[in-house]
Amino acid sequence: MYVFVNDSIISEEEATLKITDLAIQRGYGIFDFLKTVAGKPIFLEDHLDRFFSSAEQMRLPVKQSRSKLTERMFELIDKNKLPESGVRITLTGGYSPDGFNIASDSNIIITQQDFVFDRDFSKSIGLMTYDYQRQFASAKTLDYLKAIWLQPVLKERGDDDILYHDNGMLRECPRANFFLVNEKEEILTSRSNILKGVTRKHILEFGSQNFKIYERELTIDDLRHAKEAFISSTTKNILPVTKIDGRMLSDGKPGPVTLSLMMEFDRYVYG
Amino acid sequence: MYVFVNDSIISEEEATLKITDLAIQRGYGIFDFLKTVAGKPIFLEDHLDRFFSSAEQMRLPVKQSRSKLTERMFELIDKNKLPESGVRITLTGGYSPDGFNIASDSNIIITQQDFVFDRDFSKSIGLMTYDYQRQFASAKTLDYLKAIWLQPVLKERGDDDILYHDNGMLRECPRANFFLVNEKEEILTSRSNILKGVTRKHILEFGSQNFKIYERELTIDDLRHAKEAFISSTTKNILPVTKIDGRMLSDGKPGPVTLSLMMEFDRYVYG
Repeated sequence: MYVFVNDSIISEEEATLKITDLAIQRGYGIFDFLKTVAGKPIFLEDHLDRFFSSAEQMRLPVKQSRSKLTERMFELIDKNKLPESGVRITLTGGYSPDGFNIASDSNIIITQQDFVFDRDFSKSIGLMTYDYQRQFASAKTLDYLKAIWLQPVLKERGDDDILYHDNGMLRECPRANFFLVNEKEEILTSRSNILKGVTRKHILEFGSQNFKIYERELTIDDLRHAKEAFISSTTKNILPVTKIDGRMLSDGKPGPVTLSLMMEFDRYVYG
Repeated sequence: MYVFVNDSIISEEEATLKITDLAIQRGYGIFDFLKTVAGKPIFLEDHLDRFFSSAEQMRLPVKQSRSKLTERMFELIDKNKLPESGVRITLTGGYSPDGFNIASDSNIIITQQDFVFDRDFSKSIGLMTYDYQRQFASAKTLDYLKAIWLQPVLKERGDDDILYHDNGMLRECPRANFFLVNEKEEILTSRSNILKGVTRKHILEFGSQNFKIYERELTIDDLRHAKEAFISSTTKNILPVTKIDGRMLSDGKPGPVTLSLMMEFDRYVYG
């Protein structure tokens, strides 16, 4: 697989950063991740918007222009001959002379990986709730300490993903947004202190055609009255949640509102 | 300068990690930092204790034994011919196949840098308080997002360092512990949800010979009654604080209790 490290396109095995990079020294950087379907990046402009927004929020300079980054992404997709893929752009704090302040030149890495979206509509997952508020919630930083640290706990409990809440206020999953369907068949998703996902944005748009769908402050108590739930992300599109902290939702099967949204999203992306 | 990257001793300029390392992908890793004086690591066992404790808390496997790590550190000090230095051991999540779970083999880096402690007893600094609680407080993780992000704010305000408080509860500086001297001439330092510094530990030990010194829950209100304040760290030993959020302490000069501790610490370390 080929990757870009700054201005060089090289094989992934040879792709390295010097140990003075601020990601290695201090975990400092941001990234974004999109998928390609039939060689076409999905929601490209949304992901670029967020990439540049994350960089700006974290005060990281971006050497390449938006059009240059786009060009390189297409060069990579072409060269790797990988039409169905995930593409990740990572921006780090660069080679910092003092190991603490952001370098004038950041490092930028573009990688591609094989990724074929699994259109299995019968799958569903279980979540465990966990009290945690992501730092710099609206920026997609490299900080996944808590999520990675919790992986063995998830396995032990037999759950599939984590649902963060901040002292009872529902937030998000480490790599996905969370939605629930209440007793009035309204679709609700957390409004604040979250990373606003690109998939989430599109669900809010097209979902409102057939459903009542709102961004709202949600609490852990709202989970008890949820008839359905699902998460959304670039790799998962819409994925039904049928268990939260051991309690079954929708009789353990994806509910009708979720399924309807899944079908619609599928048409929306895959035509 | 020579550095160790896992089992190889190489020049720092050539020292790299592959981009699949979990530090670059997800900011996941820990480290420790000690100084050498006349070629001798200061408080070596304390730093190794904390290094292995941080690794364990973050579920990171360490390939090398404690004695092997020590051996390598001495090899580096010898080879770099740098008797006055800082030595950093960094442990990352390794080359993760899925970019999310900790690899079975972590990566370990040992670096050395020129560092001569500045024994200038007239220096003092100003702090700005900031509401923030470090995640995994008792582990020395790579997460310095907030500290790095705040650097331009510090500069703008003309302050030298940050004092974190968690909703009013005093914690620590990003790379140092915080102490204050109250009206009863007691020396107080925050007790919980902090990284317990090696220098802090020794101050608590030798300081109790001549002073009343306590670990206690401290609040931002306690700052108003502070007669003196100082921070402690491996690179700073004891450094007087004479300004907090613009308010002057000790008439803007290092106070007598702080100066007495500084002298004692100096004897303690340099003999």
